[in-house]
Amino acid sequence: MQDGARSQEQALAETPTFPYAAGIMPGKECKVLELRDRNAIGAAISELEARLGPRLATGRSFREQHGHTTTWLENQIPDAVAFAESTEEVQEIVRICARHRVPVIPFGTGTSLEGHVNAPLGGISVDVSRMDKVLSLRPEDMDVTVQPGITREALNTELRATGLFFPVDPGANASIGGMAATRASGTTAVRYGTMRDRVLSLEAVLPSGEVMRSASRARKSSAGYDLTRLMIGAEGTLGIITELTLRLAPQPEAVTGAIASFTDIEAACLTAQEVIQLALPVARMEFLDEAAVSYVNRSHGVGLPETPLLLLEFHGSPGSIDEQTEVFAELARDNGAVNVAWSADADERRRLWKARHDFYLAALGLFPGRVGFSTDVCVPVSHLAACVTASRAKLDELGLIGTNVGHVGDGNFHTLVFVDPQDAGNRDRAEAYVGWLNDLAIAHDGTCTGEHGIGQGKMKYLEKELGAGALEMMRAVKQGVDPLNIMNPGKIFSL
Amino acid sequence: MQDGARSQEQALAETPTFPYAAGIMPGKECKVLELRDRNAIGAAISELEARLGPRLATGRSFREQHGHTTTWLENQIPDAVAFAESTEEVQEIVRICARHRVPVIPFGTGTSLEGHVNAPLGGISVDVSRMDKVLSLRPEDMDVTVQPGITREALNTELRATGLFFPVDPGANASIGGMAATRASGTTAVRYGTMRDRVLSLEAVLPSGEVMRSASRARKSSAGYDLTRLMIGAEGTLGIITELTLRLAPQPEAVTGAIASFTDIEAACLTAQEVIQLALPVARMEFLDEAAVSYVNRSHGVGLPETPLLLLEFHGSPGSIDEQTEVFAELARDNGAVNVAWSADADERRRLWKARHDFYLAALGLFPGRVGFSTDVCVPVSHLAACVTASRAKLDELGLIGTNVGHVGDGNFHTLVFVDPQDAGNRDRAEAYVGWLNDLAIAHDGTCTGEHGIGQGKMKYLEKELGAGALEMMRAVKQGVDPLNIMNPGKIFSL
Repeated sequence: MQDGARSQEQALAETPTFPYAAGIMPGKECKVLELRDRNAIGAAISELEARLGPRLATGRSFREQHGHTTTWLENQIPDAVAFAESTEEVQEIVRICARHRVPVIPFGTGTSLEGHVNAPLGGISVDVSRMDKVLSLRPEDMDVTVQPGITREALNTELRATGLFFPVDPGANASIGGMAATRASGTTAVRYGTMRDRVLSLEAVLPSGEVMRSASRARKSSAGYDLTRLMIGAEGTLGIITELTLRLAPQPEAVTGAIASFTDIEAACLTAQEVIQLALPVARMEFLDEAAVSYVNRSHGVGLPETPLLLLEFHGSPGSIDEQTEVFAELARDNGAVNVAWSADADERRRLWKARHDFYLAALGLFPGRVGFSTDVCVPVSHLAACVTASRAKLDELGLIGTNVGHVGDGNFHTLVFVDPQDAGNRDRAEAYVGWLNDLAIAHDGTCTGEHGIGQGKMKYLEKELGAGALEMMRAVKQGVDPLNIMNPGKIFSL
Repeated sequence: MQDGARSQEQALAETPTFPYAAGIMPGKECKVLELRDRNAIGAAISELEARLGPRLATGRSFREQHGHTTTWLENQIPDAVAFAESTEEVQEIVRICARHRVPVIPFGTGTSLEGHVNAPLGGISVDVSRMDKVLSLRPEDMDVTVQPGITREALNTELRATGLFFPVDPGANASIGGMAATRASGTTAVRYGTMRDRVLSLEAVLPSGEVMRSASRARKSSAGYDLTRLMIGAEGTLGIITELTLRLAPQPEAVTGAIASFTDIEAACLTAQEVIQLALPVARMEFLDEAAVSYVNRSHGVGLPETPLLLLEFHGSPGSIDEQTEVFAELARDNGAVNVAWSADADERRRLWKARHDFYLAALGLFPGRVGFSTDVCVPVSHLAACVTASRAKLDELGLIGTNVGHVGDGNFHTLVFVDPQDAGNRDRAEAYVGWLNDLAIAHDGTCTGEHGIGQGKMKYLEKELGAGALEMMRAVKQGVDPLNIMNPGKIFSL
């Protein structure tokens, strides 16, 4: 306790004096919130230090890193970072925080794009990155149980020899727990589904400190409320995920990559739409607009024709892949594709997909000093061509530098706008674009977020999209499960 | 109001004098519950009659039919049946019931197997079978919006000309709303998923009377809590589903049926397990044990060899189907199948599948005077052979007449036990079997219910299966969303 008391003083001394803010646009007027009771936070930190010793970090650099977001949202740092190593430790941390009514913010790898790990009311960041083990692997059932801190790439490295893989691929090497919490997906969702579809069961620590196991390992179940799906996409607001059982897929017997270049956006999107309507089981189907192709060429030297592009991957038996590529090539040519090519060469395929996955950071690198605003709308596939075409026109109208890429098999596309943070006019126009695009998607019966989540950045669109009834129900669930509002407050719901 | 007052007297006069009971086994000692306040129920009925006129039925036959269950659960009848014709009417009914704190029990076709439409505390059965329209059909997005009362067969009849179909097939011609409420699945789930996977979005009337729309029409979304999945499988305890948007599938280009007969249960189950491990995209894969095959032969004259049987269906292009059937035949023969045959003949295939779907009623017909106890366990596929084999041995040990059939691609199988309700010893042994089997499934990391739901019959297994934490969270959700506990009380959770 002596140590704890000293650390508390130290922690309080380090507490920043500026008020945390819950505003969603930097530099904009925003509601300044009262921090939670500083004495309570100090008392919680003291108890946590007594329990965790050096694994409770209060140094400013740790805290800044754990409030860091990869986008334009402001950094709102927690009061301390607790590095948990077991479910039992997560329980103890949550119980201590609940007793003092101190916010708890789960942290995996910090690759979230919507401010999910920010601490607008201060509190304790619970870092589960050390809980990164494969707990049990059952190839005979094609499932695996892991701790939440394991990353997608680390998991697939461990699975390599089994003939199985975990197919959800958001690009970033995110933690599996974080991917579940944000209902992540990415390039392969068109074939393998999203986190919603690939988590069989999970364990979580509830706001009360109790451990909850959501489901058995059966492939289907009607046993009560679907707590698995309720936790997936809850963004840490209902509890901390401490274990996940995942459905794996067999590594495909054969893989072929294909590209098709089109003279306009519409032809590319229509081709994607027809692929879906024919239920062609493509494993990936990505769209890149002309600007995106040019960035990829510049950063990775892949030498693609600088026109709207579809980049595909087919998985299956050699026979079925031949069938798929032929059907695709015919569809693309019927829509006026100027160049359709495919290759089973693994190196060439990897180079192309690496260029696609590095796109975000590589494109940002081409505009030094600018920051990226990323959107995440998803619309019914029949509305895709109209929305992507309108998006291009709007970017031009507003004089913005921006580009569209997308997981078009699902109707999901991202505009990346390169914003000069020093130029208020540029930032305002970018914000206007983001609002316009979200409204456009909602008007087309789509969503403002296909895979990134609401976090802090999209709260104002959630009610527009779903209406008051859905918000009433979400708030009722939150109130029932977390009556003290200690679990990641200020995410999904406004403070 | 004059009419209302007369109707109230009439309704109260018709109220049965026996106490409704929430016991889950007929003839067993069970907790007798207080009915809700009779004056409140009378007042609600009076208001509902004023609003709905003849569409509020209080006659005993209507009420008995709406409390009817297809199994051994006792009939617990509601105080009245309200035939709703629109979302607005459902809202009004719920608001009236909420004001008087009167239970509301949603009703579709009454084909549920776990007492979901029973009224253990009395209250109003809200029959949505007249809300049976297709509201909008969008072939270009392969989705359709329907009212909850449309049945699976009626929907597929309407879809016939579109080249699309709704693939979830629980056997019974259930309503789509009821199928969603119980998270139904059936023979095609192995390929096309369950209701969890096929509902894009839904509208529901919450216990407050507010309308909630759960999601946009986008194929994927990270927009807040997954209210779609929360409502699917909630068994009407969180609200009444009033509209659903469903993901359709393309009608397969070609269909082939196949059968494989095995010398023992284990060989059949191992073959099914290997089909899944190879990710062979079978559209259906059903297991029938020797007894089940003999019943099907007797009732439908299909002349199958009376040994454990796998009955399959393949959907796809002619080329891919040939590939699938060949791979399957090889697997089956490697596991010692004594007879493997397939046919693309539609009539023959339909005759076989009709026999399979009629199995439950046909088998019951062979044992006049007996009632069926149906189980619904689902286990990881690698445990299937052991569980089905053990089940057969246990039935024999207990001297019970019973048979196993199952959707073995998902690890889901049903024992149908033919029970003589007049023979207390027989009934006790059947109950002992059901408990033993549920415990066995739970011990194998499976579930007591793959597709029927908890209802009244499986409450006591839910906590055994998932533990106290999951029950705590489910109760917290229920309490948050339905604080008055008016929505289908006594289902999932005990009274």
